[in-house]
Amino acid sequence: MLAVWLEKGRVETRQLPRPQIEPGEALVRVLVVGLCNTDLELLAGYYGFQGVPGHELVGLVEEAPSRPELVGRRVVADINLGCGVCPLCRAGDARHCPDRKALGIKGAPGAMAEYLALPAANLMPVAEGLSDQEAVFAEPLAAALEPAQQIQLRGRDRVLVLGDGKLGLLCALGLRHWTPGLILAGRHPGKLSIAQAQGVRVLLSSDPALGQGGFDLVVEATGRPEGLAQALSLVRPEGVIVAKTTSHEPSRLDLARLVVDEITLLGSRCGDMRLALHFLAERLLQVEPLIQASYPLAQAERAFALAGRPGALKVLLDLR
Amino acid sequence: MLAVWLEKGRVETRQLPRPQIEPGEALVRVLVVGLCNTDLELLAGYYGFQGVPGHELVGLVEEAPSRPELVGRRVVADINLGCGVCPLCRAGDARHCPDRKALGIKGAPGAMAEYLALPAANLMPVAEGLSDQEAVFAEPLAAALEPAQQIQLRGRDRVLVLGDGKLGLLCALGLRHWTPGLILAGRHPGKLSIAQAQGVRVLLSSDPALGQGGFDLVVEATGRPEGLAQALSLVRPEGVIVAKTTSHEPSRLDLARLVVDEITLLGSRCGDMRLALHFLAERLLQVEPLIQASYPLAQAERAFALAGRPGALKVLLDLR
Repeated sequence: MLAVWLEKGRVETRQLPRPQIEPGEALVRVLVVGLCNTDLELLAGYYGFQGVPGHELVGLVEEAPSRPELVGRRVVADINLGCGVCPLCRAGDARHCPDRKALGIKGAPGAMAEYLALPAANLMPVAEGLSDQEAVFAEPLAAALEPAQQIQLRGRDRVLVLGDGKLGLLCALGLRHWTPGLILAGRHPGKLSIAQAQGVRVLLSSDPALGQGGFDLVVEATGRPEGLAQALSLVRPEGVIVAKTTSHEPSRLDLARLVVDEITLLGSRCGDMRLALHFLAERLLQVEPLIQASYPLAQAERAFALAGRPGALKVLLDLR
Repeated sequence: MLAVWLEKGRVETRQLPRPQIEPGEALVRVLVVGLCNTDLELLAGYYGFQGVPGHELVGLVEEAPSRPELVGRRVVADINLGCGVCPLCRAGDARHCPDRKALGIKGAPGAMAEYLALPAANLMPVAEGLSDQEAVFAEPLAAALEPAQQIQLRGRDRVLVLGDGKLGLLCALGLRHWTPGLILAGRHPGKLSIAQAQGVRVLLSSDPALGQGGFDLVVEATGRPEGLAQALSLVRPEGVIVAKTTSHEPSRLDLARLVVDEITLLGSRCGDMRLALHFLAERLLQVEPLIQASYPLAQAERAFALAGRPGALKVLLDLR
């Protein structure tokens, strides 16, 4: 089968053997895969990754001995592959299993290939009414909704999402259903307009109205290490900053401000994909405007090049 | 009256006029004052401070027209002097009033003087059975108990206090009543033994037993910017770090670890002095072993010199 292969900072396509499923696994034919900033970090050499990337997928189940009802259905997949035996896994929290593998990131081949073997337990069926291009957003949308799973968001809270990249847009479009007054701030009028067209209040980061600060919650999704300092300047005393940026440069943190104003800084990673599928199926947000381009698997190198350009939105690989 | 005066990195004593009270204020004759790391930072030039420092006090009320029942009683004082009219002050949270003054720190003369004028509303009477040297710990002990006011501590939580300085010792001695299994880790066997003698489990920071990490909560009270990285290495995924260190050097924060493991970092400053007085009056901890030395006001320079030595515990000024 054809697969994307990352090695030494290069994107290649290779012929690899089709995976064999182990007990408990399902064989999934991949339909659409999304490129994520994490894939670009893998390419840049973080995590010492080498292999098949891809963790945002929608696919068609071809074999699933342990869950035969899934055969012939379209699915998305939770990317966390827990050990299954540790206390966290037994409590249903494979996301934080210390020995977990992560699809296409760590210890498990990813979805940028024609076929993929996955634990059947990780698969979630996709509603009929959702297109493949919509369903592929389930994984990043789950991450965007995660702040609302970690802390209580109330309707009257003053919430700011910082950063108008893919993740910031999804955060704003999703979280505003908890807090309708949410504001999205970013540097790109074109991207802000995508959120504004769906009812989000938007501001340019340079707008003096933002400078007044005093937000109860700031979701830091700028993707830049300096975003944290900006978030600290905008949150109120005793407020919360949710950090979504996984920058590999250390951030400089004004700990005195954090302590004196008793601010909470909360890290936030991936989330509840069933909730994300609900949001997509109920059309609580429109994700198609976030799609920048779509390429066949054989053109993965072009797809990565486009995704790596500053300001790029979602780039997909289409294997159908 | 005699008062300590900090200016240009020097500690002096000066004769100053005795303060006149304004409406709503009380005149307090100071009995004992504690030196705190913040006082050392004021001396070092942070905040551009110049004037009379001192915010840990016990005193005797001489005049209090608005609260005559306090006259002749010993009191401690909340150091936050709110504006009284903003929404936070009206909600009873002068601690975070944006226009607040802070006794001996910002905008209001401190307690290292024979007399002090203070809003009568900030005063809390001290129980008869408490000595002046114990009562003067109400302010730092309130700060030490503050983590338990910000998050729920349960008996079974795995809690680590990092740092065996004055604040770390008070945190461990106080917070263990919420979580008896609490561990205090530090670098000084002599200081650790103060906590151990009162029933706290202690470990040297270099002890391999600590390296296993996995704590639900780490209270970072090392006073050093690098303490944050150590706390991050010891907290479990989805765990909480409470930051008590107000270092003025920026800390380096591994934001990727925070995000991937969804860790909460919570700033924590001063706290509920009524709760601290309760802990002292009920003898839930012994604070006298934390007293390093006591000087008369006229020897304030010596007191500051001793308090500034690495490893120094609590230094008091005794005006009685």
